[in-house]
Amino acid sequence: MGKEFLNVMDFDDLKKIIGSLNMQRKIETVNLVDAHNRVLAENIYAAIDLPPFDRASMDGYAVRAQDTYDASEDDPVILILIEKIRAGDIPSQKVEMGTCSEIGTGAPMPDGADAVVMVECTDIKGDKVKILEAVTPGTNWSSRGSDIKKGKFLMPKGTFLTVDKIGALSAMGLIEIQVLAKPTIAIISTGNELIKPEEKLQHGKLYDINSVSLTNAVKACGCLPITSTIVKDDYNSIKNKIDECKHADIIITSGGTSAGAGDVLRRVVEDMGKVLVHGVSLKPGKPTLIGRLPQDDSAIILFGLPGYPVSALMIFHGFLAPFLKGLAGIKKFMGEKETVTCKLSRKYHSTLGKSHFVLVKIKENIAYPISNDSGAITALAEADGYFEVPKLVEIIEKGDEIKVIFLSRL
Amino acid sequence: MGKEFLNVMDFDDLKKIIGSLNMQRKIETVNLVDAHNRVLAENIYAAIDLPPFDRASMDGYAVRAQDTYDASEDDPVILILIEKIRAGDIPSQKVEMGTCSEIGTGAPMPDGADAVVMVECTDIKGDKVKILEAVTPGTNWSSRGSDIKKGKFLMPKGTFLTVDKIGALSAMGLIEIQVLAKPTIAIISTGNELIKPEEKLQHGKLYDINSVSLTNAVKACGCLPITSTIVKDDYNSIKNKIDECKHADIIITSGGTSAGAGDVLRRVVEDMGKVLVHGVSLKPGKPTLIGRLPQDDSAIILFGLPGYPVSALMIFHGFLAPFLKGLAGIKKFMGEKETVTCKLSRKYHSTLGKSHFVLVKIKENIAYPISNDSGAITALAEADGYFEVPKLVEIIEKGDEIKVIFLSRL
Repeated sequence: MGKEFLNVMDFDDLKKIIGSLNMQRKIETVNLVDAHNRVLAENIYAAIDLPPFDRASMDGYAVRAQDTYDASEDDPVILILIEKIRAGDIPSQKVEMGTCSEIGTGAPMPDGADAVVMVECTDIKGDKVKILEAVTPGTNWSSRGSDIKKGKFLMPKGTFLTVDKIGALSAMGLIEIQVLAKPTIAIISTGNELIKPEEKLQHGKLYDINSVSLTNAVKACGCLPITSTIVKDDYNSIKNKIDECKHADIIITSGGTSAGAGDVLRRVVEDMGKVLVHGVSLKPGKPTLIGRLPQDDSAIILFGLPGYPVSALMIFHGFLAPFLKGLAGIKKFMGEKETVTCKLSRKYHSTLGKSHFVLVKIKENIAYPISNDSGAITALAEADGYFEVPKLVEIIEKGDEIKVIFLSRL
Repeated sequence: MGKEFLNVMDFDDLKKIIGSLNMQRKIETVNLVDAHNRVLAENIYAAIDLPPFDRASMDGYAVRAQDTYDASEDDPVILILIEKIRAGDIPSQKVEMGTCSEIGTGAPMPDGADAVVMVECTDIKGDKVKILEAVTPGTNWSSRGSDIKKGKFLMPKGTFLTVDKIGALSAMGLIEIQVLAKPTIAIISTGNELIKPEEKLQHGKLYDINSVSLTNAVKACGCLPITSTIVKDDYNSIKNKIDECKHADIIITSGGTSAGAGDVLRRVVEDMGKVLVHGVSLKPGKPTLIGRLPQDDSAIILFGLPGYPVSALMIFHGFLAPFLKGLAGIKKFMGEKETVTCKLSRKYHSTLGKSHFVLVKIKENIAYPISNDSGAITALAEADGYFEVPKLVEIIEKGDEIKVIFLSRL
């Protein structure tokens, strides 16, 4: 029966180790309509001029500006209408002195015209158009390539694809683009007591929570859960399952990490690769393990989370989510540090020398700490977020301001 | 050639009208592993006791507490080991006076035992366990139903399903749950000049941007785009396409809303139902239209966005996104008002009596306004967010603080 963690690590040291983990990123092709919140993996240059032709930007009349110079509301100029050009049409007439063409927003400018008079500043009767306002050349139309010229740099590799960025790409007529592939994640729940929801609950058994919640959590971090499974808490079952999952970029296990009778994960990882972290000075979440497993040329990372669902999710929130988002390329865009400042509802006692993550429910800007029992599932049903108590803080007074990190921010 | 908007509406009045639109919500069943960011549509009561049995919360030895009362490090009590119980096992031995069972975290408590001594406070040799610490009844285990009892209320209808809430539900052995159905959206781009990315660019034509960007935007708001199509900008084409799309909850069109030659959408909506809004005192976005189309017992809402992609997306951001998120039930959870305070890089002139949305690029907390030309696509490639200039503000000085709304917040 093992009694010890390999090295109980400080909160900040853990962050450093996680920060230093790196992995090669793969690239994949996606359709633009599915590209939201993905990360561009190629530099994009304009494939065409934008606009692709001289284009009216208002409804009105395409004219030679010089024909309008004397026009005013009191003394309009009259031009002869020679053509009606709507968006999508190709003009067939040249605008000569004394003539004009009706033009719709987005329609191509006819030859000869160098300005558009807005429809509001005109009056039409038959084929005679009264121009009530003088315009200068270039008014109310955009020249071909004035927005961007074909071949010019449009968008850098690494761009986080919001709706707006996707809009700009689709203007080029692109259908597919190269984006960072979603890191693939295998999720393994260890525990002889765990059963799937399809099974009937027997004495001593528990429905597995972590495989369901981690599957959702991984998706929320821009990663792709490729398998989710339960294994018995013994050396061979765990080792075999990890072997099966080595095609994933990352393996996340839960359970099997504590220093008691069931501490087999550490031995498995020691035998298969290297244990980087085992034990963190944090409540909840002490029995956290991080390992590196050699695989072909590179290595895959294994995160061993505590078995208790609350502990597993707190560690996921605090450490794994930022890492996975970073790996997925969405770290700096998704604002994972979004917090709300609340007043604490009651005095809170922490353990000196140990960081605490404390779940809270928020009501009218007051944060109510929820039971510390990491086995309690109802805490998850109630909580809005959590706050961190640094390791050198022992007491937070009632009414003190704390920063609550939203659980929905995952 | 129409020249007028029906009623040019104030920014705030538009918000009020959108706020008063309501629609019946449908319910659908999803698997828990796909329930992230959905909204629970049923009250959930505990289907089982949690924990479902008396359960050890530490690795150690299950004892009768009274046997340990005299134990100390200097003067340990020795108990005889009668059984090893791991998580998932069913205990077969009763703990009698002077005996104990080894127990793993999560394992069921054996009969007779009323406390667990942590493994760290014991020493074992053969079948003799030295207890180095006194424990009281109830130590280090949780009784059946102590977290929640079967039949008790667990989670209310309307809960936004974060990873943590899904964890709590999966503890009940649930597989599927009832959630609000995603509102279904039909997206129609109108314009004779618009072509699909599969087509070759001809003179006078443009690749359609809005169908791609709005498809992504709608998904980001928790809605389901069910069709996305381009139609010619004439009465019959638009009317027929709207008729085809009336199985959707909402129709979003772009283009065809301006007051010029191509203004057919207003007539179509007038003939099919009722125009609620046509024209907004906002730049960009003046030619915005909202209509209600009767359909069976209820009505569907049609939003007519401007054709210019920048204008369309700004209106989507400012008005449609909050409405769609509200309809999807995620309004109050996703923080659509998330902003960053920046200093303006230069003096900005607005038009008195008209609200402005101004796209900006942010560098080191300074916001640089991007070209006002709503036809510019590169603005989309560059922008990080936008700020609002209220209608009664004409000038914002260089260095003034402004609140920038992130485009990624969609």
